[in-house]
Amino acid sequence: MSTVHVVGAAGFTGAQLAALVDAHPYFTLGQVTARADAGRRIVDVAPEYRVGAVLRELDLDAIAEGDFAAVCYPHAEAAVAVGEMVDRGARVVDVSADHRLRDGALYPRWSGFTHPRPDLLAEAVYGLPEINREAIAGARVVANPGCYPTASLLALLPMRGRITDIVIDAKSGVSGAGRTPTPDVHYSAVADSVRAYNVMRHRHTPEIAQGMGTDVVFAPHLVPVDRGLLASCYARFEGDAPHADDVRQAYADFYADAPFVEVVDEPPGMRAVQRTNYAQVCPMVDSDGGRLIAFGVIDNLMKGAAGQAVQNLNLMAGRPEDEGLR
Amino acid sequence: MSTVHVVGAAGFTGAQLAALVDAHPYFTLGQVTARADAGRRIVDVAPEYRVGAVLRELDLDAIAEGDFAAVCYPHAEAAVAVGEMVDRGARVVDVSADHRLRDGALYPRWSGFTHPRPDLLAEAVYGLPEINREAIAGARVVANPGCYPTASLLALLPMRGRITDIVIDAKSGVSGAGRTPTPDVHYSAVADSVRAYNVMRHRHTPEIAQGMGTDVVFAPHLVPVDRGLLASCYARFEGDAPHADDVRQAYADFYADAPFVEVVDEPPGMRAVQRTNYAQVCPMVDSDGGRLIAFGVIDNLMKGAAGQAVQNLNLMAGRPEDEGLR
Amino acid sequence: MSTVHVVGAAGFTGAQLAALVDAHPYFTLGQVTARADAGRRIVDVAPEYRVGAVLRELDLDAIAEGDFAAVCYPHAEAAVAVGEMVDRGARVVDVSADHRLRDGALYPRWSGFTHPRPDLLAEAVYGLPEINREAIAGARVVANPGCYPTASLLALLPMRGRITDIVIDAKSGVSGAGRTPTPDVHYSAVADSVRAYNVMRHRHTPEIAQGMGTDVVFAPHLVPVDRGLLASCYARFEGDAPHADDVRQAYADFYADAPFVEVVDEPPGMRAVQRTNYAQVCPMVDSDGGRLIAFGVIDNLMKGAAGQAVQNLNLMAGRPEDEGLR
Amino acid sequence: MSTVHVVGAAGFTGAQLAALVDAHPYFTLGQVTARADAGRRIVDVAPEYRVGAVLRELDLDAIAEGDFAAVCYPHAEAAVAVGEMVDRGARVVDVSADHRLRDGALYPRWSGFTHPRPDLLAEAVYGLPEINREAIAGARVVANPGCYPTASLLALLPMRGRITDIVIDAKSGVSGAGRTPTPDVHYSAVADSVRAYNVMRHRHTPEIAQGMGTDVVFAPHLVPVDRGLLASCYARFEGDAPHADDVRQAYADFYADAPFVEVVDEPPGMRAVQRTNYAQVCPMVDSDGGRLIAFGVIDNLMKGAAGQAVQNLNLMAGRPEDEGLR
Repeated sequence: MSTVHVVGAAGFTGAQLAALVDAHPYFTLGQVTARADAGRRIVDVAPEYRVGAVLRELDLDAIAEGDFAAVCYPHAEAAVAVGEMVDRGARVVDVSADHRLRDGALYPRWSGFTHPRPDLLAEAVYGLPEINREAIAGARVVANPGCYPTASLLALLPMRGRITDIVIDAKSGVSGAGRTPTPDVHYSAVADSVRAYNVMRHRHTPEIAQGMGTDVVFAPHLVPVDRGLLASCYARFEGDAPHADDVRQAYADFYADAPFVEVVDEPPGMRAVQRTNYAQVCPMVDSDGGRLIAFGVIDNLMKGAAGQAVQNLNLMAGRPEDEGLR
Repeated sequence: MSTVHVVGAAGFTGAQLAALVDAHPYFTLGQVTARADAGRRIVDVAPEYRVGAVLRELDLDAIAEGDFAAVCYPHAEAAVAVGEMVDRGARVVDVSADHRLRDGALYPRWSGFTHPRPDLLAEAVYGLPEINREAIAGARVVANPGCYPTASLLALLPMRGRITDIVIDAKSGVSGAGRTPTPDVHYSAVADSVRAYNVMRHRHTPEIAQGMGTDVVFAPHLVPVDRGLLASCYARFEGDAPHADDVRQAYADFYADAPFVEVVDEPPGMRAVQRTNYAQVCPMVDSDGGRLIAFGVIDNLMKGAAGQAVQNLNLMAGRPEDEGLR
Repeated sequence: MSTVHVVGAAGFTGAQLAALVDAHPYFTLGQVTARADAGRRIVDVAPEYRVGAVLRELDLDAIAEGDFAAVCYPHAEAAVAVGEMVDRGARVVDVSADHRLRDGALYPRWSGFTHPRPDLLAEAVYGLPEINREAIAGARVVANPGCYPTASLLALLPMRGRITDIVIDAKSGVSGAGRTPTPDVHYSAVADSVRAYNVMRHRHTPEIAQGMGTDVVFAPHLVPVDRGLLASCYARFEGDAPHADDVRQAYADFYADAPFVEVVDEPPGMRAVQRTNYAQVCPMVDSDGGRLIAFGVIDNLMKGAAGQAVQNLNLMAGRPEDEGLR
Repeated sequence: MSTVHVVGAAGFTGAQLAALVDAHPYFTLGQVTARADAGRRIVDVAPEYRVGAVLRELDLDAIAEGDFAAVCYPHAEAAVAVGEMVDRGARVVDVSADHRLRDGALYPRWSGFTHPRPDLLAEAVYGLPEINREAIAGARVVANPGCYPTASLLALLPMRGRITDIVIDAKSGVSGAGRTPTPDVHYSAVADSVRAYNVMRHRHTPEIAQGMGTDVVFAPHLVPVDRGLLASCYARFEGDAPHADDVRQAYADFYADAPFVEVVDEPPGMRAVQRTNYAQVCPMVDSDGGRLIAFGVIDNLMKGAAGQAVQNLNLMAGRPEDEGLR
């Protein structure tokens, strides 16, 4: 048994993560921390999970060598906390965006701060198990991918290096915006509507570009859905378009060992993956146009955040990748 | 032409009301006031109405004798503002709850304040045109009914005095909670769910009881709908239950002159009245049980607030009751 | 290990039930039957469950002595199928309404057919584990309660015999109407609206009345929610109203041994029970009015149908009541 | 006054169109036709419009010289009906797709039939008033644009000839799929989900390509919204990217005389145009990438169908373009 601390457990992602750890056959829930909600139980802020653990202020001194931690802090704050915990001997999954970009020079522009721990940034492993399984297993710091990058990369990675002119039009459920009430998440603003936001300036843009090794156009949209994220991806094949069957086979091969990626024949909807750690991907080929059209769909809080964090923790702890996630 | 000032025009009700006045063939939009949003146009806070008027702080000195005003302030603040405007010669529709209860002693318990202007409270007319058409026409202060009372009273008033043991289970769209973002109106809290709130302590309870002349059980529910309000009303007939046909005829007679009340044969849904000033009511009789089951449905921002305010302003100004409301 | 056949497994309830049995540690999935969808896998009609079993026409000869079966047929057809399976030695949970009413004379009026097997009707046990745990354990035929009766009875049973004048205003998610596309379940008819239906003639009315031992007024409503059911229940205490604390204690005592009923302090929403077998109930007392106001909320496909069926199967098979249901 | 027959008035588009004509100051509602729903009033199939006209089978002999007609038939049937009415001297807006493609050879592939009236196809005018105002005014047959092409073309036309590599990711409300209940429009299939459909084979693809004069990638998506359609359009500038200000100015100039197109600064949501004939378009420039990202949003039943039909009828009848549409 290993202890997992969930740091920032009052938000949508943190509470989901605490619930997964709480029900996990191997992990034990350690500290579950919060500031404004300290003193409340997780079940009080997220009744659907029935987790009775009490939220407390973070106690760094109670982090033990060999503990695991998952950090669900806001950006910039997470980088500091991750460092403090690693310094105390913990192995950490950073669920924030603070360790995802290998090039530290990108943080000021995209996240508004200078990275405080370039040493950890340098050693952090990008936590997409489908491509980094082994590196994750040995990492001290795992950068849990963003929700948009997860869906987009899973939809496109099998064609990495063979496509260009990538356009990603993504649709996210509202829980991706977090628990804080703002005008943008008011029911009367979200219901019955769809709109794009943060076009050309969303923090996930360079993360997807890094993953694909090329620039991308990325336009996130908010849709009237609680949980779920669909990335519709458009790209041009370099050279002649391959046959659709070959592309599908390449996807099947690429994900042959991935327990949570399902390659499907029709453009997938959100319902088949909601509240699960599964991703469904569907590549389509426009032979005349030499185009790839690929869809990736996940639950934004599971495979897009908390579920993937547990998948990474499983790998770090030498456990089966899907333990506690079925 | 008459001027109508809309005081508190940045909220859902105020913006809808300003839009109705702006498009009205007889009324001219006067001041449209706001505090936090002063300097912005109404179209900036409520794009769907395309009203270019700029929100300003209220200028009491610019209220002229004979002007009309509609006050959409929060409770307690409205009572003060209504008084100030009446003192300057305006005739006012109070869209807040501050002049609805004739018994001033009820305000401390239900609204948390002592009424500052018992003189105006005494002369205020309850602005449900279907029962008070003439009194409204001559009033200086009209208390615009609450959204729940409007739907409930329209569903039950034709049987007033003949029924007892009234239970009202009401379902409101989220816009009824106002524009302020709170945890309760977060999309992820409202979507996919229904729940009761403020059971036995909602401010509209004594207002409905006053209208029916008897105590009522009132349980409001929040439903995942933007606009619309359904009151499902249950009561026991005193004495033998009348025949269903007689009850239906009584409703038809009661609303024969009401341009906005439609008596329908099947329990009405919200869609037929959304974004209109119509109410649909449907009485049903359980002969065996001696029961009346009556449904009333409105758009909470129109017949439940802004539309009814314009209906009242029409009557006060001697205009056709439905002018600017079709 | 025991075999459970799911008869009628292509509908919303049947597919959910097959998924629960498929993942159950003790039960093995036997036949999963369908007519129009025969030849398809369950995952093809209900992708979210990832159950690969293939739907087939029912083969009665393959039912073995000691097998279990759950029948999710339409009303009237279920009564026949249950009889055929019991005759072959199976023990059956009838998920339809065909064995719920003890008085066979009620079937022609409420369900439109004369019951074909009065012998089985006489021995059938009403499958609400919270009140019939022992009888269920030994039953050959268990009548799985309806979704509305489950939520309503759980909300009211602790006060059975002490209350009268019961009014139940219930709100159901659309999945309760089944998978067949009809105008009433068209997205554009359901979204943004709430309406009552089948008032005074819903088949669940006599079932609730039977459970409470007194007539009830029951008005079901359709709400824009996929899964979830809230029963808001209003009643009058016979004699003086008890103290709210005593009522709450009575509920706590009544459900002390019920693993799936949670007595809560605030009117519950649907989210805390969605996709679970939990019910949440909340009694409130209006002392002045001598009234009980009680809320019961469930997931209509789980505690309201498939989950409760598994709960009953657990009891019939001598397994822990909550096995496979957490 | 002129008569407008609405042929196929029981569907979502036809009923909306009949309601617009019914309330129009210049047009008189002629025949409103339906087959399955003949004998019912429009208010019975679409209560929200309060149109009492009775649906009848089409009576061709009652079409008079100089009448107007709008045909809302399914594809292939519309082409026949349009011909019959034109032959009787009517001027027709074809709301179906049957006269939109100038190249008759495209119909077998994209619509599955050989066009029966190449003569009318040759003379039909594409009814997008923003580019064809004068030709529409004199036309006998106007091909009312599809909902997706309307939003897409309005978003892109100001840059026609200057862009290439066009990708359109469109999101449509469910009413666009029509009133017929199918599994795809079941509430439980649509709610809480988004999915693409008919990728690379939607009938609107060649219509958009024709309008832009170049091939396009078009991927329609169904979103959990009743009414509204957002086209998110991505393209590459030929040559150097122009400055964002210049692009915005070009849009403003292009739509200077268009009463229903609003050029906005932020990606528009559906709410500002729902139930109106307005379109909002928003061009954005990615200078580094040499890309145009442009959004167009409409109400699919108004500017995307019935409203645009009335706009065309206004032009054909020499009336103000926006009459009856504010």
